[in-house]
Amino acid sequence: MEEKEISQAVIGRLPRYFRYLGELRDEGTERVSSQELSDIMQVTASQIRQDLNNFGGFGQQGYGYNVEFLYEEIGKILGLDRKYDLIIIGAGNLGQALANYMNFERRGFLFRGIFDNNPVLYGKKIRGIEVQSMECMEQYVLDNHIDIAVLTIPKSEAAEVAEKLIRCGIKGIWNFAHLDLKVPEGVQVENVHLSDSLMKLSYNISRFQNEK
Amino acid sequence: MEEKEISQAVIGRLPRYFRYLGELRDEGTERVSSQELSDIMQVTASQIRQDLNNFGGFGQQGYGYNVEFLYEEIGKILGLDRKYDLIIIGAGNLGQALANYMNFERRGFLFRGIFDNNPVLYGKKIRGIEVQSMECMEQYVLDNHIDIAVLTIPKSEAAEVAEKLIRCGIKGIWNFAHLDLKVPEGVQVENVHLSDSLMKLSYNISRFQNEK
Repeated sequence: MEEKEISQAVIGRLPRYFRYLGELRDEGTERVSSQELSDIMQVTASQIRQDLNNFGGFGQQGYGYNVEFLYEEIGKILGLDRKYDLIIIGAGNLGQALANYMNFERRGFLFRGIFDNNPVLYGKKIRGIEVQSMECMEQYVLDNHIDIAVLTIPKSEAAEVAEKLIRCGIKGIWNFAHLDLKVPEGVQVENVHLSDSLMKLSYNISRFQNEK
Repeated sequence: MEEKEISQAVIGRLPRYFRYLGELRDEGTERVSSQELSDIMQVTASQIRQDLNNFGGFGQQGYGYNVEFLYEEIGKILGLDRKYDLIIIGAGNLGQALANYMNFERRGFLFRGIFDNNPVLYGKKIRGIEVQSMECMEQYVLDNHIDIAVLTIPKSEAAEVAEKLIRCGIKGIWNFAHLDLKVPEGVQVENVHLSDSLMKLSYNISRFQNEK
């Protein structure tokens, strides 16, 4: 499959397809047309056909898409047919919220450790795993072949911590610190800026009020 | 200013401009060229010029952009020149993390209340504000003219709670529940799906490993 040519924009939409197909599957739906998918996802049917054609066209004229098959295939494309060992750096509220979010585990993201530099938290159990000192982080990553680190630490510490993790062979960083982390080629990063979506919301609220 | 014609794709990029310009401003930078902005933001200079032209071209040939002015203008476009009263529904780890995130307050999002249906949490103070029963939510929204509700509650409860909030006149919903909330026209919603970005990360990790 020629995955290399798929644009990040399409990739960015795949998790949403995956979610909706997962719901259809859970409801027992066996097949779905691009028009039906369009109605529930509020995306045009032609966009859906175009996106899914990137992966070799799972649909058949007059039949639509096989839900289970398409769900599985998109899951494979998203790399969800394997397991990822994941640690969380920062055991504050956000770190704990993510650790407790069981759904990630279901998708193959296995919560293996959590680290903080606040001694008050050392030994506290989160989902059965004790918070460790950040001084133990590097050795832990090396010993346990951790794939993904989730950063829920302040912006001021993020770059240095990321550098340490990269030296220890981390493959991906899911970054919630308030900066766009820059990483060397071969390391993947997703920067999550929660406030960006809040600002989109304020834009839409104020625009709607100006229109009235 | 003809804001209506700006695409959501451009709007979606504005918070990022706003963040970078804010950093430049905090560092005391007075002006910046589209090329410099391109280097730090890792977006092409032509994309930057095109995006900012939507708002009437703040740049001047040979001078670049006035950082302070552009920052302020984008802030206004994003609706950040006014205050928003905000409540959080769900006082779990994620709700508490968002309540404690001071940066939102700086941007004009004022944390006014937090609600949960777990009696153990009632009266617990978060940023000086007591957790209230969800039964008090509707009256509170009505009495205090709340603009935005943040939903950090399970998927199963989200649609019903959103409906109540909308009946009480809420203007925007920042939704972290794991579904795409559908709301009537005139109400704004931003659905945040944290797992979508985690799946993008797993895609990039697995693609990189397949390429090797």
